[in-house]
Amino acid sequence: MKKFLNSSDDLVADSVAGLVMAHEELLALNESPLFVCRRTPKKKRVALISGGGSGHEPLHTGYVGPGMLDAACPGEVFTAPTPDQIVAAAKRVDAGQGVLMIVKNYAGDCASFQVATDMLDVDCATVLVNDDVAVDSSTRTPGRRGVAGTLVVEKMLGAAAEAGADLYECKALGARVNSNTASMGVALTSCIVPEAAAPTFEIGPSEIEVGVGIHGEPGRYRRSLLPADDIVTLLLEPILKDLALATGREVLLHVNGFGGTPLIELHLLNKVATQRLREHGLVIRRWLVGNHTSSLEMAGASLTLTALDDELLGLWDAPVLTPSLRW
Amino acid sequence: MKKFLNSSDDLVADSVAGLVMAHEELLALNESPLFVCRRTPKKKRVALISGGGSGHEPLHTGYVGPGMLDAACPGEVFTAPTPDQIVAAAKRVDAGQGVLMIVKNYAGDCASFQVATDMLDVDCATVLVNDDVAVDSSTRTPGRRGVAGTLVVEKMLGAAAEAGADLYECKALGARVNSNTASMGVALTSCIVPEAAAPTFEIGPSEIEVGVGIHGEPGRYRRSLLPADDIVTLLLEPILKDLALATGREVLLHVNGFGGTPLIELHLLNKVATQRLREHGLVIRRWLVGNHTSSLEMAGASLTLTALDDELLGLWDAPVLTPSLRW
Repeated sequence: MKKFLNSSDDLVADSVAGLVMAHEELLALNESPLFVCRRTPKKKRVALISGGGSGHEPLHTGYVGPGMLDAACPGEVFTAPTPDQIVAAAKRVDAGQGVLMIVKNYAGDCASFQVATDMLDVDCATVLVNDDVAVDSSTRTPGRRGVAGTLVVEKMLGAAAEAGADLYECKALGARVNSNTASMGVALTSCIVPEAAAPTFEIGPSEIEVGVGIHGEPGRYRRSLLPADDIVTLLLEPILKDLALATGREVLLHVNGFGGTPLIELHLLNKVATQRLREHGLVIRRWLVGNHTSSLEMAGASLTLTALDDELLGLWDAPVLTPSLRW
Repeated sequence: MKKFLNSSDDLVADSVAGLVMAHEELLALNESPLFVCRRTPKKKRVALISGGGSGHEPLHTGYVGPGMLDAACPGEVFTAPTPDQIVAAAKRVDAGQGVLMIVKNYAGDCASFQVATDMLDVDCATVLVNDDVAVDSSTRTPGRRGVAGTLVVEKMLGAAAEAGADLYECKALGARVNSNTASMGVALTSCIVPEAAAPTFEIGPSEIEVGVGIHGEPGRYRRSLLPADDIVTLLLEPILKDLALATGREVLLHVNGFGGTPLIELHLLNKVATQRLREHGLVIRRWLVGNHTSSLEMAGASLTLTALDDELLGLWDAPVLTPSLRW
């Protein structure tokens, strides 16, 4: 295992501290329990919190800031945050209008956010993200997993909260964005959890894992490596089947890298996916290409599609100022 | 070799097309000869062009847009762009105030930009970037190599050109930014050029290459893998020796990933480097952490320091709107 590392025990805390140092104008760090929140004083509106295991950076800490999250709670690598992190973050960012928690559908995350909600004396609601169409349940959760579509939910909810939507409007909107979003990924290599110091799964020198999870969970099947054109087909087919979009429907296309795949390849995937979706009769209104929901150093990528309407497009386009998403 | 790829012959053109598709509001594509330029009409000011071999994305195509480059000419992977690309791009973006070419110091790039300058009937000037303090000359060039500091030169010159600096002011400024900038990198793994389909260099499972070039050129020496703390020391020492900054000097710190190293590790490096520079008596005013000057899928990173004054800080802070840098 070759990584930039001092000790696996300190990696998450040190890395989060390094993020906050680089963005001192935007972010504040709470060291214990660990969370990141906006530096600016809270306004009277719904506060948005997310969190989950580390190793998916920039998700979620990189999306704290005006127009997106109020706080993010990073757990240890691929491990849910503890309830005390979530409770402390919620208390810090609550502005009297309630706290909305955006949770990827993993058993550990769901449990921690539920316990935190039970412990909190503020109005809380939860949006569960389960955009991964690869498998119906996996080693980490019953039901579909939450993956790269989480960013889309966080961005759109951030805009809605900023515009004054109340807690229940935010919750309903989050459910709507989630149900309009579908993702699927593919791995070329495994990730390596620092503490384990060994690949999460074995994969042959010419194999790919189609439908992989963002923790290296098994997907739908193994294949021999295929040309990019064919890999895009394997990813888009289940996504399009899930969303069942009418011809002419407007969509957002998010090409997400898993950490070890360079941008030159992600842009190739974007070209192929864009052409394929246009042939399918869809109208791509917005694109996002880059490493956003990573899996440590895994080589691979996922495609995410969100069906848009005027409201969702407006929420996507609303200003955002975070370390890793800004316009 | 596992990559997302259709054919190595089409990779660059397809990837650049994918980039432009994702940023149709900002960028325009010229397919043949290949270059990317801003979509908006040119204004009466100095036009900035850069370019170089592909495989370093987002450099340079990801930095085209208001406040930074007017055009970028991507060569084949790790291969200089041809003069006809540069000539065509210069003609497209020249607004009657001259064209400034920002060139990384590699023999091939220098030759192509020189031939293009000779062919062009517009005022041209060149800024040569050679920020890599690792080696005095290498397999690809006499003299120091141009690496991640190129982004700093492009950003500051973009702001100056936008503010109306003339061609010779821009050239002088570029030389000043370059001389105030020093970088050094380290590789944990090799990159793989798609056409070669094999690693550029062999490196053992617990070795690192200190001072590596962004094409996998040899650095200063091999070492066994060290803790991140020690690696940061190995990179900062030559940088600080080169710049010889007085205590209290203000600097920009850029932690750059080479493509295969995830953000969680880059932020760890940032924390360590930030602490080390503070102990050294420097005042870090700005940070940039991410994969900006990559080397395909190489795992590794570089540190870049630019000594600031009020003018350079203002140019760094000026608004920028490109695919991969925006504020």
